[in-house]
Amino acid sequence: MSTARVKEILSWYGSDSPGVKANLARLMNTGRLAGTGKFVILPVDQGFEHGPARSFAPNPPGYDPRYHIQLAIEAGCNAYAAPLGFLEAVAGDFAGDIPLILKLNNSDSLTKGIEPCSAVTGSVEDALRLGCAAIGYTIYPGSGARNEQYEALSGLILEAKEVGLPTVVWAYPRGAGLSKEGETAVDVVAYAAQVACQLGAHVVKVKPPKNFVEQAEAKKAYEKHQIPIGTLKERIQHVVQSAFNGRRIVIFSGGEAKGAEDLLAEVAEIAAGGGFGSIMGRNAFQRPKAEAIQLLRQVMDIYATK
Amino acid sequence: MSTARVKEILSWYGSDSPGVKANLARLMNTGRLAGTGKFVILPVDQGFEHGPARSFAPNPPGYDPRYHIQLAIEAGCNAYAAPLGFLEAVAGDFAGDIPLILKLNNSDSLTKGIEPCSAVTGSVEDALRLGCAAIGYTIYPGSGARNEQYEALSGLILEAKEVGLPTVVWAYPRGAGLSKEGETAVDVVAYAAQVACQLGAHVVKVKPPKNFVEQAEAKKAYEKHQIPIGTLKERIQHVVQSAFNGRRIVIFSGGEAKGAEDLLAEVAEIAAGGGFGSIMGRNAFQRPKAEAIQLLRQVMDIYATK
Amino acid sequence: MSTARVKEILSWYGSDSPGVKANLARLMNTGRLAGTGKFVILPVDQGFEHGPARSFAPNPPGYDPRYHIQLAIEAGCNAYAAPLGFLEAVAGDFAGDIPLILKLNNSDSLTKGIEPCSAVTGSVEDALRLGCAAIGYTIYPGSGARNEQYEALSGLILEAKEVGLPTVVWAYPRGAGLSKEGETAVDVVAYAAQVACQLGAHVVKVKPPKNFVEQAEAKKAYEKHQIPIGTLKERIQHVVQSAFNGRRIVIFSGGEAKGAEDLLAEVAEIAAGGGFGSIMGRNAFQRPKAEAIQLLRQVMDIYATK
Amino acid sequence: MSTARVKEILSWYGSDSPGVKANLARLMNTGRLAGTGKFVILPVDQGFEHGPARSFAPNPPGYDPRYHIQLAIEAGCNAYAAPLGFLEAVAGDFAGDIPLILKLNNSDSLTKGIEPCSAVTGSVEDALRLGCAAIGYTIYPGSGARNEQYEALSGLILEAKEVGLPTVVWAYPRGAGLSKEGETAVDVVAYAAQVACQLGAHVVKVKPPKNFVEQAEAKKAYEKHQIPIGTLKERIQHVVQSAFNGRRIVIFSGGEAKGAEDLLAEVAEIAAGGGFGSIMGRNAFQRPKAEAIQLLRQVMDIYATK
Amino acid sequence: MSTARVKEILSWYGSDSPGVKANLARLMNTGRLAGTGKFVILPVDQGFEHGPARSFAPNPPGYDPRYHIQLAIEAGCNAYAAPLGFLEAVAGDFAGDIPLILKLNNSDSLTKGIEPCSAVTGSVEDALRLGCAAIGYTIYPGSGARNEQYEALSGLILEAKEVGLPTVVWAYPRGAGLSKEGETAVDVVAYAAQVACQLGAHVVKVKPPKNFVEQAEAKKAYEKHQIPIGTLKERIQHVVQSAFNGRRIVIFSGGEAKGAEDLLAEVAEIAAGGGFGSIMGRNAFQRPKAEAIQLLRQVMDIYATK
Repeated sequence: MSTARVKEILSWYGSDSPGVKANLARLMNTGRLAGTGKFVILPVDQGFEHGPARSFAPNPPGYDPRYHIQLAIEAGCNAYAAPLGFLEAVAGDFAGDIPLILKLNNSDSLTKGIEPCSAVTGSVEDALRLGCAAIGYTIYPGSGARNEQYEALSGLILEAKEVGLPTVVWAYPRGAGLSKEGETAVDVVAYAAQVACQLGAHVVKVKPPKNFVEQAEAKKAYEKHQIPIGTLKERIQHVVQSAFNGRRIVIFSGGEAKGAEDLLAEVAEIAAGGGFGSIMGRNAFQRPKAEAIQLLRQVMDIYATK
Repeated sequence: MSTARVKEILSWYGSDSPGVKANLARLMNTGRLAGTGKFVILPVDQGFEHGPARSFAPNPPGYDPRYHIQLAIEAGCNAYAAPLGFLEAVAGDFAGDIPLILKLNNSDSLTKGIEPCSAVTGSVEDALRLGCAAIGYTIYPGSGARNEQYEALSGLILEAKEVGLPTVVWAYPRGAGLSKEGETAVDVVAYAAQVACQLGAHVVKVKPPKNFVEQAEAKKAYEKHQIPIGTLKERIQHVVQSAFNGRRIVIFSGGEAKGAEDLLAEVAEIAAGGGFGSIMGRNAFQRPKAEAIQLLRQVMDIYATK
Repeated sequence: MSTARVKEILSWYGSDSPGVKANLARLMNTGRLAGTGKFVILPVDQGFEHGPARSFAPNPPGYDPRYHIQLAIEAGCNAYAAPLGFLEAVAGDFAGDIPLILKLNNSDSLTKGIEPCSAVTGSVEDALRLGCAAIGYTIYPGSGARNEQYEALSGLILEAKEVGLPTVVWAYPRGAGLSKEGETAVDVVAYAAQVACQLGAHVVKVKPPKNFVEQAEAKKAYEKHQIPIGTLKERIQHVVQSAFNGRRIVIFSGGEAKGAEDLLAEVAEIAAGGGFGSIMGRNAFQRPKAEAIQLLRQVMDIYATK
Repeated sequence: MSTARVKEILSWYGSDSPGVKANLARLMNTGRLAGTGKFVILPVDQGFEHGPARSFAPNPPGYDPRYHIQLAIEAGCNAYAAPLGFLEAVAGDFAGDIPLILKLNNSDSLTKGIEPCSAVTGSVEDALRLGCAAIGYTIYPGSGARNEQYEALSGLILEAKEVGLPTVVWAYPRGAGLSKEGETAVDVVAYAAQVACQLGAHVVKVKPPKNFVEQAEAKKAYEKHQIPIGTLKERIQHVVQSAFNGRRIVIFSGGEAKGAEDLLAEVAEIAAGGGFGSIMGRNAFQRPKAEAIQLLRQVMDIYATK
Repeated sequence: MSTARVKEILSWYGSDSPGVKANLARLMNTGRLAGTGKFVILPVDQGFEHGPARSFAPNPPGYDPRYHIQLAIEAGCNAYAAPLGFLEAVAGDFAGDIPLILKLNNSDSLTKGIEPCSAVTGSVEDALRLGCAAIGYTIYPGSGARNEQYEALSGLILEAKEVGLPTVVWAYPRGAGLSKEGETAVDVVAYAAQVACQLGAHVVKVKPPKNFVEQAEAKKAYEKHQIPIGTLKERIQHVVQSAFNGRRIVIFSGGEAKGAEDLLAEVAEIAAGGGFGSIMGRNAFQRPKAEAIQLLRQVMDIYATK
């Protein structure tokens, strides 16, 4: 039976079918954070996105696809997210052990000089076949190939809804329209979260925003209305507000590998700002397993006490 | 039972199915202007188009998607228009409370340097699923990506007609073919209205035209035939005439936020020129709610007494 | 804006899309009973079911399809229900004037000696094209052709849901499995209501049940548990309870033409027993128009004061 | 340019597309009766229905498919109706010379002992390919295979509407539910006309009704309401009234071959009763051509002076 | 019944279905030139192509879509051609009054700097729904976007053929491959006519060619073989010859508005050279109605006496 908090979160998705709601509930009723409405998800798409050695050499057991799902299960994550191949390799043997999220598009680092746009590398049919609880999709707001991505996502969300699957959107601003620094500017991250929600995302993943405003027009608004963005907590609050005033689930990536202390401090700010959780890849699977499990549990503990 | 005026307007759409006519009638038989054949519609796509802070910081309750539909209902608008995400967030809880218009394409402000072209972010199937009374679509006449937009719209209009939904077209001239000033030039706005009607739009939204003629060839015609364009009322008359001699519904945007007095003066000119109504976003939802309702009702009163 | 009662009724349909709910709301927000959650619907399928002279000779203006929709509008009914041809003949000219229900199957009285089974004479596509708010379908529980009917209905309900249309089921027990008297036996009517709800009907229409139990096995239960069925009010209560404990809308047919006094007495019992309304054909359209309007309004008044 | 009468008739089909109306107009704007809203159509499906010798031996040129279309053109008929084969044989050479009606189902006389049900022997696609102005379909109300026929017709009508083709329904009561005499009983013919209209027929063809009431329940209504059926004119009036109070086109078959005088007397009664025309096969093509033309023109003259 | 000349013209289209031929016959059997195999068609796409004021200010009743179809009917034209919106606005009310040609692609004058390429703004399905007798499509031979246009046209011609609709191709040389003068050079116009015929056009519209040869390679051939191109009559003969030796229908545009005398002199040359007719827009609808009708009839008279 879902807790009152889970029921409350589900009530925000009033236009969705019971199937979509049931899968959202599965995500929220799994792992050590079950029932809290908070999330810690393990995503492992770096093999595709950054290449195997960059991803797995720091902790070689990670070359084995079984390693990650086991890590997610043992640590008590809400879900495990990966591209088709990694899920194919484990979905049979670990059937029913943890909710799976099929990352439906991916981009490798071998091509250069095109506007950022991931390839669609899986389907809603695959997600059903593999027993997934949700689909995942990356958009790059700011890319010159924006329309192609938004339109494909739009179609996938509808298709997924029809078979009872919610959608997790990775919203990563990037491309000709933005400076490098602007990719994590607070106005841009908040905007990306808003776009993902408007496109119909059930869960949005963004990077923790920096204390910087990229767009001139936005700057005027931030200054005029004195939107507080000085601390990470304040910036998280602003992003959560930008995601339908907190009525959509927004989770934050851990970003580049960093020290445990720094990471936990960052998580504490995210939690304090009303973030719904973390989706941590490299900071988890590039550590030795025991250490990773310990770290993930510390992260969970922070969210659990919020 | 529709009034004689509503019946008259419906008679202009003689090639459409009863389903399309019934939904047009729903738009005209709702709110404080019910039965007059006039429209005041609340559109909220600025979160997508301009970003959340620029849109909602002036009046923070607007971060919450419920705020806008409640504002539209309380003010007595004919309809509420928004992108998929904002409608998903409210369509279930407010089912049947006000006609909804699903904005089927949207553009964010994060991408630069491409010819203006919105992404298709929803479908006719979504519109039915969400219980909408119409679909909406933005075209940018003057854009180098014009064909892509006109062709997608053309397909959506046919698809929508087949299931009984009319189409509202936002016609915003923009792109390489036009100067910045030309975007609201009277010849260009009138031309954009004509194009939208020729594409099959049931309702056309344009900006109030300025006293300026952009195109050299057009200038000759305006001068030779002494088309009066000196006052806003005259320019509105010309735009309405350009929309099949007044036999298509043409409504006007409120544009940038401005003082209530200026806005009401503008609306008075629009009404005097035969405009069918206003579609006001920022001038409504960026004001405190009570003030916004008062202003919207003042706007309605102007149209009601025409 | 829907009333609290309408919102409450809509909450019973929590697995349905906003589109289905919006159309249910349309049915409940129309006419003199708007907002009460009560229904008086005018159905005219007797031309098909009984033939033109038997149906319309008592009040010859009824030969004209326009007569009936005008009657429904003038009397303030929630909706008008008819087969394809009768709706085709009026849907264009009366677009948007009253919610329409397309009866998707019909049976004439010219064929003898087959198990009762109506022909499917329209489609969900027709319903959208004609701007209907719901589809209607007749099942004959007790018929040897039961499966054919249940299976077709099952497919239509799903198809209708996908495009935002609710389904009204006429549940008329009939066929080799039942005695003539058994067709309106209280156990059989209650059972038919339950079957319709289990098939996914949003609204169920049954005949007022008689004080008679048809099925031997059922009789034991009625006796053992002393289910009160002595008065019509008690039998209505039992049928409403049998329709998901009152969480599905159950309305009652007027049956054969009868005197106004008898009819109003019957309606008072239905209302007292918790019936959601009446769907009255012959008792309405076979009377002179003024008389029919007066009678329909008297019926509405009874429900309104419940 | 259509006459006021043709415009009036078209106005009865207010839910249809311009394409359907344009083809109805073609039928009404062709031949010697052009503009009158009256019809004389030549149908030749007897080769299929009765066999070649029974059909064509009385006038052997009729074995040649070209004979019939030439007869229809020369006589000045509104249209020529036939099964696929007969139309295939002439549609290319006579393209555009006269509106064609493709009879989409047919029954031969070789099979016995099954409930009457024609085979579907053509498609809407065939009708378009052959340049037809309408499709035709036969139903046998009273047949035990009624549902199969009504359902197939229902689908064809929708399909035809979508491509702008109206439907002519041959409504011939027949089957286990009826006595032989009952097939042309006035109550049964009127009922069959009503059923065809409810199914969505644009034009209904029935046989001239006899002074006989088949159904016991109907008999009560005819007696109680003193419906005049003593003369053919009165019975025609009743059938026309039964077809949506005269707001659907009802035409009458010539039936078995008979003397010219009898036939013209019958036509005079049909015309006097408000019948929209005649659809005469055997009485035309089984006569020598010159005689047939003369007779058809005499029939037209009767309708023209109504 | 078609005349011998109409039958002869139809015989050139021996690979086409009866449906396509019947619609070609409809075009040839309508209006004052019925039966002659000659054409005067009223096209009104200038609202889309040039903008409303440039098109309709010279004769303001032309802002109303009803004006043009009425003009075409009253003048006795063979057909009326327009984009979707203008046809939607009249097809229901004027159903069957004159053959309609749906212009399936259109270009506005607001976009600059792209290779000429019209947007596809309608479909074959629309043409059927609106009751059209043909589809129309513009190609710009010489454009860098040639393939896109030829390929879309090719698909549409096949699709149209399958449902019995012929295709009228506007062949307007234009684009990077040609000088401004070359757009009406005799070699280029003749070449464009040939291309249209090779693509499968049933009717080709070109501009009257000028006494100028654009292409160097072509120039050699014109000189070597002494092709007479000195008079307009000779150039017309050459273009007609280039359209399958006169076995495809070639009609000529009236071009820019000009004096009646000049226009009639030009038409006389076109007729003398074997042109099949004129398709006159601006020269018709930019004149006062009575004057336009007189002029159109004078044009018809010239063709009728050929």
